[in-house]
Amino acid sequence: MLLSSITSLPEIDLVMEQSMLAFLEYKKTNPKERAAFLERIALEIETLSEELIRTTQAETNLPEARLLGERGRTTMQLRMFAAMLLEGSWVEASVDHAILERVPAKPDIRKMLVPIGPVVVFGASNFPYAYSTAGGDTASALAAGNTVVVKAHPAHLKTSQLIASAIEKAIAFCNMPTYTFQHVTESSFEIGKALVQQSNTSAVGFTGSFSGGRALFDYAAVRPRPIPVFSEMGSTNPVLLLPNALELNAETIASQYAGSITLGVGQFCTNPGLLIGIKSASLDRFKSTLATAINQIPAAKMLHQGILSAYQKNRSIALSTKGVNSLTNDIASNKIDATPIIAMVSGADFLANENLKEEVFGPYALLIECTNIEEVKQVWKSVSGQLTTSLMGTDKDFELHPELIEMASSIAGRVLLNGVPTGVDVCASMVHGGPYPASTDSRFTAVGINAVKRWVRPVCYQNCPDHLLPDALKESNPLQIKRMVDGNPYQ
Amino acid sequence: MLLSSITSLPEIDLVMEQSMLAFLEYKKTNPKERAAFLERIALEIETLSEELIRTTQAETNLPEARLLGERGRTTMQLRMFAAMLLEGSWVEASVDHAILERVPAKPDIRKMLVPIGPVVVFGASNFPYAYSTAGGDTASALAAGNTVVVKAHPAHLKTSQLIASAIEKAIAFCNMPTYTFQHVTESSFEIGKALVQQSNTSAVGFTGSFSGGRALFDYAAVRPRPIPVFSEMGSTNPVLLLPNALELNAETIASQYAGSITLGVGQFCTNPGLLIGIKSASLDRFKSTLATAINQIPAAKMLHQGILSAYQKNRSIALSTKGVNSLTNDIASNKIDATPIIAMVSGADFLANENLKEEVFGPYALLIECTNIEEVKQVWKSVSGQLTTSLMGTDKDFELHPELIEMASSIAGRVLLNGVPTGVDVCASMVHGGPYPASTDSRFTAVGINAVKRWVRPVCYQNCPDHLLPDALKESNPLQIKRMVDGNPYQ
Repeated sequence: MLLSSITSLPEIDLVMEQSMLAFLEYKKTNPKERAAFLERIALEIETLSEELIRTTQAETNLPEARLLGERGRTTMQLRMFAAMLLEGSWVEASVDHAILERVPAKPDIRKMLVPIGPVVVFGASNFPYAYSTAGGDTASALAAGNTVVVKAHPAHLKTSQLIASAIEKAIAFCNMPTYTFQHVTESSFEIGKALVQQSNTSAVGFTGSFSGGRALFDYAAVRPRPIPVFSEMGSTNPVLLLPNALELNAETIASQYAGSITLGVGQFCTNPGLLIGIKSASLDRFKSTLATAINQIPAAKMLHQGILSAYQKNRSIALSTKGVNSLTNDIASNKIDATPIIAMVSGADFLANENLKEEVFGPYALLIECTNIEEVKQVWKSVSGQLTTSLMGTDKDFELHPELIEMASSIAGRVLLNGVPTGVDVCASMVHGGPYPASTDSRFTAVGINAVKRWVRPVCYQNCPDHLLPDALKESNPLQIKRMVDGNPYQ
Repeated sequence: MLLSSITSLPEIDLVMEQSMLAFLEYKKTNPKERAAFLERIALEIETLSEELIRTTQAETNLPEARLLGERGRTTMQLRMFAAMLLEGSWVEASVDHAILERVPAKPDIRKMLVPIGPVVVFGASNFPYAYSTAGGDTASALAAGNTVVVKAHPAHLKTSQLIASAIEKAIAFCNMPTYTFQHVTESSFEIGKALVQQSNTSAVGFTGSFSGGRALFDYAAVRPRPIPVFSEMGSTNPVLLLPNALELNAETIASQYAGSITLGVGQFCTNPGLLIGIKSASLDRFKSTLATAINQIPAAKMLHQGILSAYQKNRSIALSTKGVNSLTNDIASNKIDATPIIAMVSGADFLANENLKEEVFGPYALLIECTNIEEVKQVWKSVSGQLTTSLMGTDKDFELHPELIEMASSIAGRVLLNGVPTGVDVCASMVHGGPYPASTDSRFTAVGINAVKRWVRPVCYQNCPDHLLPDALKESNPLQIKRMVDGNPYQ
């Protein structure tokens, strides 16, 4: 049975032992077989059709259009990893030929990436498809040749079960080992901890809150054999509103951000939560346009009651902090819907109150009004460790402050110019990660083909006869992939 | 003053703050400038000439020829990273062009690797040059654009100070920020812990014992902001002696391994510590040749008294374990020199005694005599987590057991066929690392150009005007590097 209803810790041992045994078989599959498997998962998800969308709507309050878009992104991701496998150079193959006349003689050495082992995935509540059961973590781990155990998110359990059933069908259709994928539906704290600490678990992927992501990291760090944990956690995604840009476009930028702050009821990890500007007439125009736009946006349902309660609590804490005022009609969210709100504070009061740096998950942003560009930079630097940071500026702004782009790259994994951070394009250049606490390891991304690098390790073969080498390393390059040869990249 | 004589913890704060301030400048240097800096360090080390070699001989008991070789390797490594910078494609640049007609419109996104921040390096006692003050960790961290703080190894403090003075001269010559490199000479436990836990420290490199490497990992994991630690630790480097290879070449293999086990008085982390074979007449021939060869190798001085004492203690523990006998003349090492020794045990007794899996650092190996190939595999799997594993086998051996190569890649970072693991070639295909406890993160290597990946993180720029992009990402590709373009690798 794949859809495990786990109720005791010994069952976790069984799940992870099955995952390890399946891994020993699954990792031997060739790239074409794994590509076909990923493509089949995408097809099986599409085959779930209306039933899937209706189930998720009921569980998450997300509108149909959004869910159709997210489903498209999820199947596209699976197909992207399939294409990556067929292209093949992601294994970073490197060939160094022997040089027998060198003293000492240089041996023949060849290197490639291999899968790390069973990966445990904890999906996000806010992306029931794209960062969940068959989301980016699962797709990248399976692509690399790892088996996967998903702990279903309790907020969309039925959705998760449907997706798990699609993966199960793909496993059967493609004749993959039965336990290539397993689904754990019990959601207790102890089960999560046990999954991370079970001896066969080789890596962990998580998308969600800071407290959850850090807890999993800590569980893994104290294991007898520590394992990598990639937790993608909260972010306030600071936005710099530079003077010349505001002078020319205060109203346009305000409208753009009113949309971004409230998109999906603010339930994106890239939601712009901090807007940083300099007190001026153009910032006043920005404020007024933003407030008017936000006041016109109706309250809306959040994913579930727990998220709504947290939103109400966190915005209350922020609004009751010294120096914080509301720019918008201060209507407390009711018991069903979340009202969007823009709060405001001076740069000095922001710097004096650590709690204002914390993410308020929902349709909320805090406008920080600074006295000059130095204070803007001080505020910005004080919140480093972000998924994204955005700069709204003209050429004139950047001529005056060329240091800002460099600073931005220290603060976040993704730097945006004159745009909004919501909307994470799935492509090879995307970085969805960043310095802690945006993620637990800034050296990796959760989105794009490089997401696979979290689940692979290099192995080299020294003096290995050609016929015993993996195909990626054979002298004749039968996979026809780009390789580094004798230190020359990408031959 | 660069050569810090740190005696108190507040001074560590100062060192790391200086390192961070220097990082903010140093990371702006271009690849050519950093390449020239690394080349200059190599030249300054060579300029130390006889004084360096004599100083290290006195501190380490290592012979001149070995030190000349290791110095050559160290300067070669520095020049290899300089060449990597000039070639340039190591930054893994990726360009995704905008597709405005797509729904939703695809933004222009470009990604590259950037330095992670100040790196603290703890060098090894057994490689006073190549894995120490200006060794692979320092060279790779500086190449990537990070500042470095080295904690000098107390076993070769004067050597470390000389190398630090060479780096200091290169900093002055190349006009790099003064605190690009700092050298901490105090060796207390508290200073090491403070260096790892100081808030500005962004990554740690370590080469040495299991207990030391794990302690640093643990200190880093409990920081408010966890940071990556790459500890390269002990390894027993199991060797499989397959039946047909022994039948044909027992004597040759025995001679080869007698040399490898005693090379450098056995003080290599790739020293072959476990030899696994099947009870047979040819294994008896192997044993007899190996014992004769080892008995003829004279006792020799180890690096320092502490290492000799540990060797004496650990070999005593091994030899007093149930079922363990000595194959060689059982002369206890005297108070100055280490006598090489080969111990022997049955597969069953090895599996029953966990302590036999532990590394005995020195000119020692344990021959494990198994009853059949299944027991060989059982023994082999029981010691997974290795820097290297070697297979001595003929085509016939691998025809009979094609699964062995695949198994080897699960156990170690480097798989050798018909060779000895001592001797780590510095090239792009080298993997010097492996599953825990060989290292704390199997996804990285400490040797070869990929060693740089431990100290970098990806950053992407979305919708950034061309003139504000880093050179590596500009549309015209001014650095003329291989890049991924629109998902097509290495254009």
